[in-house]
Amino acid sequence: MTQPTETVFTMEATPVKFGRGAAGEAGWEAARLGMRRVLLITDPQVARLPLAADITAQLRAAGLDVGVFDRSRVEPTLESLEEAVAFARDFAPDGFVSLGGGSSIDTAKVANLLLTHGGEILEYVNAPIGAGRKPPTPLRPHLAIPTTAGSGSEATTVAVLDLPELKVKTGISHRYLRPSQAIVDPELTRSAPSGVIAAAGLDVVCHAAESYLSRPYSSRPRPGSPDERPPYQGSNPVADVWSAQAIRYGGESLRRAVASEDDLEARGAMMLGATMAGVGFGSAGVHIPHACAYPIAGLKHEYRAEGYPRAFVPHGFSVIVTAPAAFRFTFDALPERHLQVAEWLSGGPLENPSPDSLPHALTDLMRDVGAPSGLSELGYSEDDLPALVAGAMKQQRLLAVAPKMPSEQELEEILRASFHNW
Amino acid sequence: MTQPTETVFTMEATPVKFGRGAAGEAGWEAARLGMRRVLLITDPQVARLPLAADITAQLRAAGLDVGVFDRSRVEPTLESLEEAVAFARDFAPDGFVSLGGGSSIDTAKVANLLLTHGGEILEYVNAPIGAGRKPPTPLRPHLAIPTTAGSGSEATTVAVLDLPELKVKTGISHRYLRPSQAIVDPELTRSAPSGVIAAAGLDVVCHAAESYLSRPYSSRPRPGSPDERPPYQGSNPVADVWSAQAIRYGGESLRRAVASEDDLEARGAMMLGATMAGVGFGSAGVHIPHACAYPIAGLKHEYRAEGYPRAFVPHGFSVIVTAPAAFRFTFDALPERHLQVAEWLSGGPLENPSPDSLPHALTDLMRDVGAPSGLSELGYSEDDLPALVAGAMKQQRLLAVAPKMPSEQELEEILRASFHNW
Ligand SMILES: [Zn+2]
Ligand SMILES: [Zn+2]
Repeated sequence: MTQPTETVFTMEATPVKFGRGAAGEAGWEAARLGMRRVLLITDPQVARLPLAADITAQLRAAGLDVGVFDRSRVEPTLESLEEAVAFARDFAPDGFVSLGGGSSIDTAKVANLLLTHGGEILEYVNAPIGAGRKPPTPLRPHLAIPTTAGSGSEATTVAVLDLPELKVKTGISHRYLRPSQAIVDPELTRSAPSGVIAAAGLDVVCHAAESYLSRPYSSRPRPGSPDERPPYQGSNPVADVWSAQAIRYGGESLRRAVASEDDLEARGAMMLGATMAGVGFGSAGVHIPHACAYPIAGLKHEYRAEGYPRAFVPHGFSVIVTAPAAFRFTFDALPERHLQVAEWLSGGPLENPSPDSLPHALTDLMRDVGAPSGLSELGYSEDDLPALVAGAMKQQRLLAVAPKMPSEQELEEILRASFHNW
Repeated sequence: MTQPTETVFTMEATPVKFGRGAAGEAGWEAARLGMRRVLLITDPQVARLPLAADITAQLRAAGLDVGVFDRSRVEPTLESLEEAVAFARDFAPDGFVSLGGGSSIDTAKVANLLLTHGGEILEYVNAPIGAGRKPPTPLRPHLAIPTTAGSGSEATTVAVLDLPELKVKTGISHRYLRPSQAIVDPELTRSAPSGVIAAAGLDVVCHAAESYLSRPYSSRPRPGSPDERPPYQGSNPVADVWSAQAIRYGGESLRRAVASEDDLEARGAMMLGATMAGVGFGSAGVHIPHACAYPIAGLKHEYRAEGYPRAFVPHGFSVIVTAPAAFRFTFDALPERHLQVAEWLSGGPLENPSPDSLPHALTDLMRDVGAPSGLSELGYSEDDLPALVAGAMKQQRLLAVAPKMPSEQELEEILRASFHNW
């Protein structure tokens, strides 16, 4: 007897306000969302920009009491999140505004969750590391204002955290973590260093490509109850639309966005692409490159990327380095779709379509935007392979979304092929 | 001094659960939305189907108290809506489930609005006919389950109503009218007559084509405050993505969906297209064909369409009859986009691209699915032109979204060219 397969998928998107100058409507949006006492969550770098003072002033002008937590950490840890939670409990806001990269948005998600439903962070962290506790009701309103074009966190239901003591990255995932409203304003990326734009943009490309190249939702077994439907459902006709457009933006605009901080058209396209990819992967899911990225970012912190405040592997680089080998591995599960992604990235028909077309399109893009060439440049050697493989194997929730499930040995081959992409 | 132009657009989508069998999760979704006492709103035809009994049983099995209002009217009137409001006030539910075509969903929107915020329906109706009162806070949860692939009402912020005494159709429009969740299940269209599928599908094509061919959002003047940004903002890069996909579905699947009630793949594509188009036009807007449709559906009620319970002009037919002439008129404002729509509808490159390509693609589709050939078949003659023009001119809110504003005389020419499309 064959098990019946899935026939249903779901799609949910954060309401978005997009465009140059949109951040000037932050005060109006916070008031519209019913906030009266708001906690602004940002990081020390963004806090020093005139932007942070402007948003604070807007919130006050809209009649809100404003608290500011400016110590969110790039790549949040349990400790940095607990500090934000304690601050939120002390200030007791009725709403949150997050301003910054994915880490500030994720920090606000977690502070909102803990303030609304109590308990300890680890209770909510995905099993097996945490207890996977689910919030019973929606959280307080949360207005997310990203300043980089990458994580798509403004559109997703996930908050990622680093547990350095366990050398592992994990997360909290629930639909109620999705922000209530996003404001995406290309002007805000004007000050971003090109290294930050490059890493963030490659993350966008991976979100979209992994989603488009995930296992079709209709190939999973049908769940016994809607509760058991996984948050990462596999590719579906609606997620595909978002992912396709984000891949096109990556191919057309990422090089230009990195080359000039004044090219707001290109930076705007990447911001919009980041949000679109966030909606897409929030439904379809990411898989092999993101599973490998967890140990790659978690095990060593010696890489110095241009534009970042300290030595560590920016998330986008931790993801992109294995993407060429990963998509070489998955090619034969969905050959037409891999060629389609390569075509969108290249901006035109492929001259010699082959299993290497997508890996080549990706390495061309990486090289052009100054990404590290592979694991070696990030500080890894052959000796690290067992630890990297073990770390990636822990991400079964992600690997299950791959169009072709890699064995431990196949993961090792993918990682080994990723020391030098050129 | 030139006025600064708009730089911002917004996008908001109803969360959707899509797929064969998805309606089997209605009870679970209603409970998840926090409902305990729910009013099911449907129409007399749907109420007689086993489907209605199944949904009611599911809601009861999920532990909810269920009331049923089964007298929503195809093309709701003030009277039919008032009856639903009175029923809702009497039953006092904490949430709504709507099951049926756009009119049942719209009836639930209005009942929810009046139950939550009090007052009279006309207070909320768009000016100048009503007072355009805005609801100050969100409404009760509303789960929408469409049974036809057309209105996209599950994704929009609008409820349309007919005022026969004034011979005018108008509406209530506010973001809080958007349902909290939609379930879109292709199985539910299995019983729909092919005439209903044809009219609904042509409406989808018009929603998407009018949105894609609307005035770009960036050509409007910048509003003084976010409050003054119109709900129909004009075409933008996110609405375009939704509209494009809905047009492709229309070209690929509408003929098949009409030809066979068992072609659930095609009927599913049209349902998904209806929702996508609803998201798209909820942001970009519709214009000339919909403006003309108001008087076309409002002035005469003698057309008998196959599959409908009484003589009247189904909304989709009232819209499509002027679409060929309207897009012939707007062609030179956005020529490339008009050719693009024609290509998507035809499913391949155009042999002889011209201003007539899109009108031809539309009339081919109309003929193939058994639509009326034009205004004559709907009972109109030359004598009716002044009344039709006057009715269309009242829809300035819509006409303002056209890529090229028609004068009264140009509207008359469009209507005159629409008596016979072949
Ligand atoms: Zn990522
Ligand atoms: Zn319509």
